[in-house]
Amino acid sequence: MKLDKRSNVPLYAQLKELLADRMDQGVWQKGQQIPSELALCEELDLSRPTVRQAIAELVSEGRLVIQKGRGTYVSAEPDRIELRGYTAFYFSILSARSISDLPIESIEQIVATPEIERVFQSPAGDPKAQFWKISYLLDMDHSPYADVTVTIPVLMFPDLGPDIKAGKRMVDITANKYAFLPQKAQGSLLVRPSSVDEAKRLELSRGTPVLVHTAKLISRSGGVCEWVNAVLRPDMVDLGLESGRS
Amino acid sequence: MKLDKRSNVPLYAQLKELLADRMDQGVWQKGQQIPSELALCEELDLSRPTVRQAIAELVSEGRLVIQKGRGTYVSAEPDRIELRGYTAFYFSILSARSISDLPIESIEQIVATPEIERVFQSPAGDPKAQFWKISYLLDMDHSPYADVTVTIPVLMFPDLGPDIKAGKRMVDITANKYAFLPQKAQGSLLVRPSSVDEAKRLELSRGTPVLVHTAKLISRSGGVCEWVNAVLRPDMVDLGLESGRS
Repeated sequence: MKLDKRSNVPLYAQLKELLADRMDQGVWQKGQQIPSELALCEELDLSRPTVRQAIAELVSEGRLVIQKGRGTYVSAEPDRIELRGYTAFYFSILSARSISDLPIESIEQIVATPEIERVFQSPAGDPKAQFWKISYLLDMDHSPYADVTVTIPVLMFPDLGPDIKAGKRMVDITANKYAFLPQKAQGSLLVRPSSVDEAKRLELSRGTPVLVHTAKLISRSGGVCEWVNAVLRPDMVDLGLESGRS
Repeated sequence: MKLDKRSNVPLYAQLKELLADRMDQGVWQKGQQIPSELALCEELDLSRPTVRQAIAELVSEGRLVIQKGRGTYVSAEPDRIELRGYTAFYFSILSARSISDLPIESIEQIVATPEIERVFQSPAGDPKAQFWKISYLLDMDHSPYADVTVTIPVLMFPDLGPDIKAGKRMVDITANKYAFLPQKAQGSLLVRPSSVDEAKRLELSRGTPVLVHTAKLISRSGGVCEWVNAVLRPDMVDLGLESGRS
């Protein structure tokens, strides 16, 4: 793109787009230093205040970073954790090969809430249905990035809580449970503002958007065997998708 | 939870969490009116300024909405477009059954940029490799929610541009192209701040986060046959995940 001094789009706004284009197109790579204000003034025949305003806006949008005394740099992408092979089964406990590494925070036996009843389609006449509620918090260098809660019917896995606490292996926990193991998963992924609690758990400021993964896992016998809820820090994760066709 | 007047957490902050809990737990449903300030003062034995401050913060976080002269309501979730069966193949043109409904904005034949060369692993000695660059913008009631660009090698699909412009059907476009059709897809999904251009295209304010979907589609013959880039409005979409196991 070229700057048009006769356009009614202000010059600083045109310059801003030109600079953004150079970053988008990789002319200036992430982490790289860009030319000085003076060099840009000369290259593009612009006044200093015009260049300064364009840069100031790109700094306020987080695309450029000024390092005091050194110069202006293209913002480096934050390091992200790649969640490889992300699918609707992700974060599930029953689908995990091993859970010995999972930083489990709590395992509680609870009575179905109205929401749990809806998900598991518990018969309305069974107000006392019991569920395991298991929470874990994944972190990277002590920064939490995924706050996960899974809900599993006690009826299907009566000893799950004590078994996990005793460090039993998944292969033993799931032995003879073939009919209750997940075969299909239906999920949803969306971005929404975090609740007060979620923000606190993920060390975000209030109301910051979070990525929310929810999935119902359906067993071979046809019922819902696990309900997975995960709240993710959007700036820390990169969901790796892989699909194949036969 | 209960309010603790002797705690060193300010009362308004405790109240805020209590109100947030009621929303999270569905005691107050989305779109429902909550009790008046006065009613909350009486119920919880609190002063008016305490109640007012807790509500003001929840309003500023977007969890509550004040409707002038009517009362305070739990924010309704915005209507979202469910992208059913979301996978790494989503938004692809070569995998689409039909593209006659796609709101295609532009079809250009371009020379490989360094980025395109990297993705398609074009031999370095071929600086003139040509690609089709096709853009479309999906919208809901005239609000755009997905800005998609796909890149396809001209070498594999020499007539793609004219064929699409002529309204040729996908089944005819892909006839005899078996070896070049997508069989596998490897993608990535992440949230990052929007660029100036992306924000403009999706009618967002600058720097607002966007959901970015990127995928390489790999053909039966083994090469990359399509590169898909989609920028999504996080407040408008809900990605529907479905997975199965044999």
